[in-house]
Amino acid sequence: MKLINQGILAAKGFVAVGEHIGIKKQKKDMAMLYSKAPCMYAGAFTQNKVKAAPVIWDQKVLKAGEKVHAIVINSGNANAVTGIKGHQDTEQMAQCTAEQLGIKKEEVLVCSTGVIGVPLPMDCILDGIDMVAGKLERTPLAAKSAAEAILTTDTFTKEIALEETIGGCKIRLGAIGKGSGMIHPNMATMLAFIATDINISQTMLQKALSECVETSFNMITVDGDTSTNDSVIVLANGIGGNSCITEENEDYEAFKAMLFEALKYVAISIVKDGEGATKLLEVEIQNTLDFASGKALAKSILTSSLVKTAFFGEDANWGRILAAMGYAGVDFNVEGVSLALESAAGSIHLFKQGTPLKFNEIKAKHILEEAEIKIVVKMSEGSETVTAWGCDLSYDYVKINGEYRS
Amino acid sequence: MKLINQGILAAKGFVAVGEHIGIKKQKKDMAMLYSKAPCMYAGAFTQNKVKAAPVIWDQKVLKAGEKVHAIVINSGNANAVTGIKGHQDTEQMAQCTAEQLGIKKEEVLVCSTGVIGVPLPMDCILDGIDMVAGKLERTPLAAKSAAEAILTTDTFTKEIALEETIGGCKIRLGAIGKGSGMIHPNMATMLAFIATDINISQTMLQKALSECVETSFNMITVDGDTSTNDSVIVLANGIGGNSCITEENEDYEAFKAMLFEALKYVAISIVKDGEGATKLLEVEIQNTLDFASGKALAKSILTSSLVKTAFFGEDANWGRILAAMGYAGVDFNVEGVSLALESAAGSIHLFKQGTPLKFNEIKAKHILEEAEIKIVVKMSEGSETVTAWGCDLSYDYVKINGEYRS
Repeated sequence: MKLINQGILAAKGFVAVGEHIGIKKQKKDMAMLYSKAPCMYAGAFTQNKVKAAPVIWDQKVLKAGEKVHAIVINSGNANAVTGIKGHQDTEQMAQCTAEQLGIKKEEVLVCSTGVIGVPLPMDCILDGIDMVAGKLERTPLAAKSAAEAILTTDTFTKEIALEETIGGCKIRLGAIGKGSGMIHPNMATMLAFIATDINISQTMLQKALSECVETSFNMITVDGDTSTNDSVIVLANGIGGNSCITEENEDYEAFKAMLFEALKYVAISIVKDGEGATKLLEVEIQNTLDFASGKALAKSILTSSLVKTAFFGEDANWGRILAAMGYAGVDFNVEGVSLALESAAGSIHLFKQGTPLKFNEIKAKHILEEAEIKIVVKMSEGSETVTAWGCDLSYDYVKINGEYRS
Repeated sequence: MKLINQGILAAKGFVAVGEHIGIKKQKKDMAMLYSKAPCMYAGAFTQNKVKAAPVIWDQKVLKAGEKVHAIVINSGNANAVTGIKGHQDTEQMAQCTAEQLGIKKEEVLVCSTGVIGVPLPMDCILDGIDMVAGKLERTPLAAKSAAEAILTTDTFTKEIALEETIGGCKIRLGAIGKGSGMIHPNMATMLAFIATDINISQTMLQKALSECVETSFNMITVDGDTSTNDSVIVLANGIGGNSCITEENEDYEAFKAMLFEALKYVAISIVKDGEGATKLLEVEIQNTLDFASGKALAKSILTSSLVKTAFFGEDANWGRILAAMGYAGVDFNVEGVSLALESAAGSIHLFKQGTPLKFNEIKAKHILEEAEIKIVVKMSEGSETVTAWGCDLSYDYVKINGEYRS
């Protein structure tokens, strides 16, 4: 597997674009992705009971099992909790895109991200779709502009492209994603799109996506808030030349590995760019009973405001980590727990089998000054290792979210 | 029922004191409460799997069912996750207090609050107990000093005293409590103490406490972190003169009402003084299916960092409230939800039966500028009303917790 350029347009047969259409004041706010060859489509969506209108549309298309050709995405407005009008607006976005591209509205996926509870400015959106559909192209600039146009409070684009030889053919996969608040995915994160030219059945594509999401997007958190709009969508146009993957063979595993790399990269990038984040925190729970226990413990640590602020303050206040584990709803033996912190500056042991260790505060401070820190927790209940990612809680998180709408 | 003075010393037969013994740099850090008449004792404690050593001691005393005479409390150090030494230190605190007061160590409750994972400075603590035991008295100043000595990052004392005629006798009840971080009680909050002269059986005292805690302390949250030390302790020395309450009669209901008022007052005071809090948020879930559903919805709203920062920013970004309800793990019909905000400055409806309402942003801003705001959510699943309390998330929360140990 190798890293290549071109982001979302790495795979053959896709065109894209991102433009400013006027939902936001200045920044790009509409992206479109299109493949002339019909695409297998797999999706993973938010488990929030309050689902945005476009999520419900995309789930309906997924259920119908039809191939799709295009995705239209707007940022700056989530079209969530917008009542009946919200559903009508989503359908109109699909319809308008379909007319421009000469396809059916059921072949168009729709995604929205931004403020919740405000109706979409449809005049601006429909004019925008007309304009954007006319600018679709296959250039590095178009790939970049699409990655930019899906962002909200993100400070950088998240894109990756990979190439792997599968079934004797060079298969490519490009991915883009966005965060960066209301991030605590349950099945999927805010928005991520993967375009690949692999030839694969819908069943196997969905299977690969579901499995990879569980250990990538579902293992990150920024602020513990599960969004109304989380969507991870994979389009596979099948023109890569490999013989169609219809079972869990070697080709499937190779594709899954490639998909996982891309999802993990985008997921961790979203955490790094978490609202106000100054540090990436990786929690590794070792020797835990099972995946569910390890996930609950890791997520409890990473969503604790007290743990997050301590890391922002570069303070080795490790007792808060133990406290957060204690209310995770998981049974464990405190006397079997050991805890260490690691970063590029070294590592330090703080707690060993239930007993606090004396440690060098200056060394701890140096370790915590780094931008990426690993929290290693060793349990005594089993043999599973589970990894999750989060970030610290800073003044800027409060600033960004206290002033979001203004 | 009427409000009276004298805080924790309102009830007959109790003496107390709070002093600086040197755990903290300058502030008072040890309190003691004593009744010569033996007390019925009821307690509610943290559900955190990682329980501090004093919590385990107090639970052991409760299980033994003996009457108690005293509580010794230190602030500045929680004696939590301190290994075997932690348990030895707690027992030594009880032993030393017992020697000073001429009672048995099993008649002494111990509470600690402060930083986690650091062994207690026992020289300082044991000298402190000697000194404090000699200063116990029954004066307004002593009551106030005890309320002060249990505080950590709190900015004001939480105390209340009530008087009610029960069984023909004037019964009194005094309470003190402290917060103000790691507050998301599950069964009880950080620390609260209630001293009363009511004559009641242990069974009925524990029943009244457990019921009242469920709708007071268990309905507040500051930061979603359930502490390792949460304890609510009631001592009833029985010298009030009423005939002993041994069943759910009129006297029991009168006492329970009195206890609930005191617990609710202390619980809400803890939220008002939440770390960095600038606003008290009350969530009322109306027409919900049952207590558990309403509690889950209310707590989900009040623990959402996005909701909390929006209130800090005085921004009527109500979509975040719906999003937080959506991931509460409760089934509900979005089309049956209505939402309003109320404060001393008026009220405003934002969402009605699934549809966003146009609202006056200036009026909303005025409502949100107040220090106490009520969020009224009307559901369509049942007839239960559930109320919970929380606070906003401000720069100061990050400051206080980024620098806690320094």
